[in-house]
This record gives sequence, structure tokens and C-alpha cells, in this order.
Amino acid sequence: MARNKHPEETINLILDVAFCRFMEKGYEHTSIQDIINNLGGLSKGAIYHHFKSKEDILVAVTDRMTKESNRLLADIRDRTDLNGIEKLKAIFKVSLNRPVQEKLFTVAPNMHNNPKLLFSLLKDTVEEVAPKYILPILKEGISDGSIKTDYPEELAELIILVANVWTNPMIFNSTVEESYRRFIVFGQMLKGLGVDIIDKEMTERVRRLSSIYQKNK
Amino acid sequence: MARNKHPEETINLILDVAFCRFMEKGYEHTSIQDIINNLGGLSKGAIYHHFKSKEDILVAVTDRMTKESNRLLADIRDRTDLNGIEKLKAIFKVSLNRPVQEKLFTVAPNMHNNPKLLFSLLKDTVEEVAPKYILPILKEGISDGSIKTDYPEELAELIILVANVWTNPMIFNSTVEESYRRFIVFGQMLKGLGVDIIDKEMTERVRRLSSIYQKNK
Repeated sequence: MARNKHPEETINLILDVAFCRFMEKGYEHTSIQDIINNLGGLSKGAIYHHFKSKEDILVAVTDRMTKESNRLLADIRDRTDLNGIEKLKAIFKVSLNRPVQEKLFTVAPNMHNNPKLLFSLLKDTVEEVAPKYILPILKEGISDGSIKTDYPEELAELIILVANVWTNPMIFNSTVEESYRRFIVFGQMLKGLGVDIIDKEMTERVRRLSSIYQKNK
Repeated sequence: MARNKHPEETINLILDVAFCRFMEKGYEHTSIQDIINNLGGLSKGAIYHHFKSKEDILVAVTDRMTKESNRLLADIRDRTDLNGIEKLKAIFKVSLNRPVQEKLFTVAPNMHNNPKLLFSLLKDTVEEVAPKYILPILKEGISDGSIKTDYPEELAELIILVANVWTNPMIFNSTVEESYRRFIVFGQMLKGLGVDIIDKEMTERVRRLSSIYQKNK
């Protein structure tokens, strides 16, 4: 491959290939060499110029997916045809139904061996997703009367942390049935907090994603 | 110091001294050498025989505290004078009021720089505390009618994860006011799930522990 004068393009190429390798073979069974072999002549040195380790690549792959996910959250947040609680429901419905979820669950990175990745997920959830996407929606819901709380900042954090962390089979190793039951209890928690948005279609989707993960891990 | 023929005693001595140093100077500002200087002649080699790093010592200090905490949870679980929901309330009341909490919050380890410690806390919470201490109490509450849920395993996890992780100012850096508000929302979550156990005394205690942490970090 000709040397790329645009490092951004090289990085994206590495991430595309890495993502595909992680999907096909799983993160644990992919080596840096596997990724290089699929990069059409890019040298080991060129990869290490951009990434210190395989974990670094995984973090970058995840970051890029997070950015895409955040764009989607912003789109829902900024819609004008839904009230607050409808937007919150749309967030979960749309997020669960993204095709990339299946890919992600196919890659099945085991966070048990990856505390740094887990920590970056927690940090992103509390410092980015909660204040920038969930909080404005809760505030809109308070204004339009569809959501009632005196603590929107804290409620935003709690909702999205429980969703992203606890119901995530990649973090807390769980069977399909356990993931499904966790998501149901998550729905009960929301309902108890006055936000009744989790429906049968969503819980069934969680069951399906979890079964993909079980098959591939 | 004479060479100790009982490694268990040596380890406990190292942990006692390390805990005191971490408390007085903070984890970040304590070096292995500080610990050695207070061990009355134990060599650097002797410490490294038992612990690979300062982080290793912190993990062992935390493990020992976890064991003590679990003994306390077991005592409440096994009481015969309380019903299920009263035991659950006692768990939070007694845990928050332990003097060691103040010491722990004085040490103020910053989990932001310590993803492994965070991960071990998550793992312990889900794999030990939830099934061994909280779940039996919920099941007792279901039997005696004081708690209603079809998903006791998941509810046990959710309750204790949110309490140990989200409302913990060591994990999610927060002001005193934010910790206090999180704990109030935690109480609302429990109430919404039919478990109304968080009272004013407990929320005030959280405010106090959080202020100790803020002063010392």
C-alpha cells in the first residue's frame, strides 16, 4: 500500500480492519499481526506509530462507535415531534435496534479482562452521555409535564448507568435469561421512578442481543 | 525486627501500617518506602516477597476491609429479630455508621487512577455481596410479605451496585451536594421498587462521609 499522507485516513483504515477482525475472530483471538495482514502492506511500524497496543486499537474502535452513537442520541434529543418521555423511550428503542449493536455483541470483548475499557465506558456514560443527551431530555420532560423529578441530573446518570453497565452482558457476564431479567427489572425501576418506557419489543431485543453475545464469546 | 516465621502475621502488619499511612498521607502520596520506614526493620525485599506493588498492597487492604464488611452483613442477614425489609434497612444503616467508613473516606483512594480497584469492587459486589447477603434477605422479605418482587436475584444486584458504585464519591468524583442528591435518588429508586428504607438520618450520614472525602482527597 502506498504510504498514506493523511494520518486520519490511515487511522480509519486500521480501525475498519481491526473492527472486522475483532468481529470475525473475537478480540482475544485477534493479534496485531492479524490486523496488519489485512492492511494491504502497511507495516507493523506504521501501526505502532498510531497505536501502542491492541488494547489501544480497541479503545479507538470503541471511541469511534461511541461518537456515532452520540450523534444518534443528539438527533433524538433535537427532534421536535416528540415530548420528553417519548424522546427517552426513542433513545432506548433506537439504540437497541441499531445494526451495529449486533456487530458489537458479535465482537464480544470481554470486559472482565479489560478494566480500562470498562472504566472508559463508565466515564463516558457519566461525563458525556448523561449530561449532554439524557439530561436535556429529562428537563424537556419536566417542562412539558411528561416526567416528574426534582433531581434531573442524578436521574439522568442513574438511568443511563444502569442501562449501559448493569444490563450489559459484556460487563457482568450473564446468561441470556439473566440479561433479559435484568432489563425487565431496569424497566420496573424506571416505572417506579415515573418513567414507564420499556416495552416488550425492547426486552425481546435485549434477549436477542444477549444470545448473539453468548454464541460468540 | 526479627524475621517473622508466620507470613500471615507479616502480611497483617504490612497491611496495618499501609492502611495507617494511606489514611495519614493519602494513597497517592504514600510510597512503598514510607510503609517500610514504619515497619520497624522489615526489609524492602520482605515486602516485595508478599506484594508486587503499592497497588497490590491497596488491593489487599481493601480485601481485608471487604471481609470485615461481609462479616457485618452476615450478622444482619442471620438476625432473627427482624423481617426482610427491616434487615435490608439495617444493612444500609449499620454500613453507613461503621467508624471504618470515616477512615476509608479519609484515605480517599482515587479510583479514577485505579481501574483495577474499581473492577474488583464491581466484581465483589455482583459475585459476593449481592448473592450471599442481599439475596437471602430479599427472599426472606418475599416469604414474610415485606418485599414484593418476581426477580430477587436481579433486584439484589441492582440495589447493591447502585449503592456501592453510583453513590460512592470515590468512584464518580462528586461534590458533597451531588453525593447527597444521588443518595436521595437512590432512595426514590428503592421506594419505586417497593422498598422504602432510606431515611433522613442515612442521607445526612452520606452528606457527612462525602464531606470527609472532599476534605481529604
